[in-house]
Amino acid sequence: MPDASPSGSARLIALDWGTSNLRASLLGDGGRVLETRAAAGGVMAVPERRFEAALMALAGDWIEAHRCPVIASGMIGSRQGWREAPYVECPAGLAQVAAQLVRVPLTAGSTLHIVPGLSCIGADGQDDVMRGEETQLWGAALAAGSCCVLPGTHAKWAWMGEGAGVDGAVRAFQTFMTGELYAVLTQHSILGRLMQAGQARPEAFAQGVQLGLAEYANATHVIFAARTAGLMGRIEAEGLPDFLSGLLIGIEIGSATGPALPAAVVLLGDEALCSRYETALDLAGIGHYRASAEATTRGQWRMALAAGLVRATGADAQATT
Amino acid sequence: MPDASPSGSARLIALDWGTSNLRASLLGDGGRVLETRAAAGGVMAVPERRFEAALMALAGDWIEAHRCPVIASGMIGSRQGWREAPYVECPAGLAQVAAQLVRVPLTAGSTLHIVPGLSCIGADGQDDVMRGEETQLWGAALAAGSCCVLPGTHAKWAWMGEGAGVDGAVRAFQTFMTGELYAVLTQHSILGRLMQAGQARPEAFAQGVQLGLAEYANATHVIFAARTAGLMGRIEAEGLPDFLSGLLIGIEIGSATGPALPAAVVLLGDEALCSRYETALDLAGIGHYRASAEATTRGQWRMALAAGLVRATGADAQATT
Repeated sequence: MPDASPSGSARLIALDWGTSNLRASLLGDGGRVLETRAAAGGVMAVPERRFEAALMALAGDWIEAHRCPVIASGMIGSRQGWREAPYVECPAGLAQVAAQLVRVPLTAGSTLHIVPGLSCIGADGQDDVMRGEETQLWGAALAAGSCCVLPGTHAKWAWMGEGAGVDGAVRAFQTFMTGELYAVLTQHSILGRLMQAGQARPEAFAQGVQLGLAEYANATHVIFAARTAGLMGRIEAEGLPDFLSGLLIGIEIGSATGPALPAAVVLLGDEALCSRYETALDLAGIGHYRASAEATTRGQWRMALAAGLVRATGADAQATT
Repeated sequence: MPDASPSGSARLIALDWGTSNLRASLLGDGGRVLETRAAAGGVMAVPERRFEAALMALAGDWIEAHRCPVIASGMIGSRQGWREAPYVECPAGLAQVAAQLVRVPLTAGSTLHIVPGLSCIGADGQDDVMRGEETQLWGAALAAGSCCVLPGTHAKWAWMGEGAGVDGAVRAFQTFMTGELYAVLTQHSILGRLMQAGQARPEAFAQGVQLGLAEYANATHVIFAARTAGLMGRIEAEGLPDFLSGLLIGIEIGSATGPALPAAVVLLGDEALCSRYETALDLAGIGHYRASAEATTRGQWRMALAAGLVRATGADAQATT
């Protein structure tokens, strides 16, 4: 049945609701982005769990004007969030996750649908978790069997199973505390003492990556080199932040890949961070591609399609190929 | 020549002067401890580098009454300290270090002798450094070829070369940021969020150690288990601090020893920390001994003897055997 509404009509309000930020996108047919807004209304920033107030402040006019469904992915589904959306265990496919959206009726009349995160048990027997990245993975239209790296505070390495794109399952994943370690070590540890902020130092970054790749199995020792290299004058104070950044990314790549290097990985995330990882992956001899920049809203659209919250049109057939 | 002075006479004022604390000991014949004092006058706590004022406030009466030499080991010899005492490169023996004490005349009339730290270049090509621990190592009267572990903020693993006790050389050493990582991760990272302080949880500690020993080559990933084990209810909030402590100590032992386990190590340091390491070493199947509790003042006395600041008596022959 052809869609009778004008092509500019809003179909879905998609929220990327993380720990620090709340980003809202108004999506039209085929998931086309009509408008975006952002606020510092992340899960940890909303006082007294007044999540509905935070949402209405940012996108209340959209909700009232368009009366379309609202979907949210990210930490908003955690225990500290609005409503807990229990993790779906890996291997997990899009259809399976879409069937478990948690519905929260909004006072304004519409319904919020919270996407559950994923959990998996690693080779080390430990649980691992993600919230929000699963939606990006399905938005990135990955090839079967690919390995996707999402740099960040808690970087994720995800391995896809059989099936491509929206038919692909997330087979397993691993979290690395790379971004948070960089932040706490530079701000709160002795490693920050000799550091000076300044221009990027690509050579110090590369030295750090090489060292991290070689010594990833000795991480809690080798990071001390970010102090001694400064003490001994081998790296200048302005180069130490990039040296530590390279070290931690090198350690992550070495640990995640071990002796069996993947031929290539797909990078998905923030431009500046992805470009650091590209340099590091080059030094490791691992090929890399960039996933589409709009993976989050595309994933949210596909999730809404799979859940029957929106209807497919000609634009979707185009977008998913 | 027999010593004519009464056995209760002060021979040396020995300062253990670290980043946070200043500990002073008044030593008599044979390095016997006559009196001790401590203040929060560490290198980072002394305003405007007024180190002489800090020393006189704590031990000015000793210096004036006894007019004996003063020796200091620790961070006081760093660039941020009173006077920089350049590192002596490993392999380094006591006599070599004793020949390079840095002399600082005191206004009160005596002279302060600062013990230099040691540096070495690891198998990874990176510099490593210690200040203060070298003096403890010689105070511990270690056997030739032994491996000595000094737990702490920046834990050290030191490997001794040929020669025993005061004749032994420090062949090489490695720093692990175990204690500082524990502090910054519990206080400033997401890992601290689910934690609750409480009674010791030996079982959670042991679980952490086992996981760290098995997954030491994957450190920046496996520490995230200190969050997920809490999220998934596998370890209660009160057990998470000990779980992370065990994890980091297990990672340290795994990284330091690799696949070739030493038969036994000597533990040197704070009682509570050493007892944690004993548990962890048991789980790793590595034997352990405790070094004498007075290693710091013994090492300082032996350093002063080797430098000719004090004279040997019958008591020294007893103490060094």
